[in-house]
Amino acid sequence: MSTTAEIIRNGVDSQQLYGTLDAIKADPSIAKFQFRARNRWIDGAHNRTTIRDFYAANQEDTSRTADFVIEAGEPAILLGKDTGANPAEYLLHALAACLTTSLVYVAAARGVHLTEVESTLEGDMDVQGALGLSDDYRNGFEQIRVSFSVKGDATDEKLREIVARACQRSAVFDMVTNGVPVTVDVATD
Amino acid sequence: MSTTAEIIRNGVDSQQLYGTLDAIKADPSIAKFQFRARNRWIDGAHNRTTIRDFYAANQEDTSRTADFVIEAGEPAILLGKDTGANPAEYLLHALAACLTTSLVYVAAARGVHLTEVESTLEGDMDVQGALGLSDDYRNGFEQIRVSFSVKGDATDEKLREIVARACQRSAVFDMVTNGVPVTVDVATD
Repeated sequence: MSTTAEIIRNGVDSQQLYGTLDAIKADPSIAKFQFRARNRWIDGAHNRTTIRDFYAANQEDTSRTADFVIEAGEPAILLGKDTGANPAEYLLHALAACLTTSLVYVAAARGVHLTEVESTLEGDMDVQGALGLSDDYRNGFEQIRVSFSVKGDATDEKLREIVARACQRSAVFDMVTNGVPVTVDVATD
Repeated sequence: MSTTAEIIRNGVDSQQLYGTLDAIKADPSIAKFQFRARNRWIDGAHNRTTIRDFYAANQEDTSRTADFVIEAGEPAILLGKDTGANPAEYLLHALAACLTTSLVYVAAARGVHLTEVESTLEGDMDVQGALGLSDDYRNGFEQIRVSFSVKGDATDEKLREIVARACQRSAVFDMVTNGVPVTVDVATD
């Protein structure tokens, strides 16, 4: 009897997924990654980030064939010209994207076929903090609310488990909820 | 004797900047903002965020004339097709952009003309965490290093003070270093 194994699930190559996990188990040194971003101020609230190279599997990864170029800005009420989403909005995007990818990968690993994953995120901020007008308010969001709509060929309970697992394993969810040590160096010449 | 006040500094309208600060001091209720992002899964590691509307100054802000559409992805080694920068890289972008805008605004407020602001960011991650292979590693970056190059018509000391003040007031620096409470709701039908 022959069976045809399903390889691509939710757009994720499950053979490659299991192969990656096995390769890391065999040699954990390949799990060390370094991601990078380069930013340049353009004018006012307009600045631009370029992303391409990164380190993975004990070497520089050169597989990307082009830079990602990302524009930031602020709306008029925050003294900008809408040259891009603002930094706090990009943080919401990073969180949404990471939870979604984590969720899709977890579903693929568990044999669940998703048909829809949508999310809306809201972050509440009193800008008296960031503008230096009051120490009663933090600079960033006081809280972030994420609302997922998830559909697929699994029970409600199973879909909720997948979302919970995604939250447990998402890199950006970890960073946004727990914080990361950041060092800042400055050169002026 | 008449003097011509300089209004635009570093691309920031300093009259509007001081006007905004005065308006918030007069009525702090206008400082309450809510930013939003909507994300939709496309396929595999590819998902897309749409950003436009936000709440500010006691009303919905409708000044933006178009959506910002932001694509996320993963490189091949993380099972994606490079449909966009990955979520952790977007977090670095959010941090770079927020520090840079904060720095530019602080310099404008202090009468410093900047000629260059560049930054490179690095984040170290052992993906055994996010892949669920080991609890010895966190999911996100263990640390982030930011290196700024800042030039302008001020002393080295003053330029460094401006960077330090930007770190003290940046919304995303606060969130990334201190964390934010995040709630996640799920609907499955």
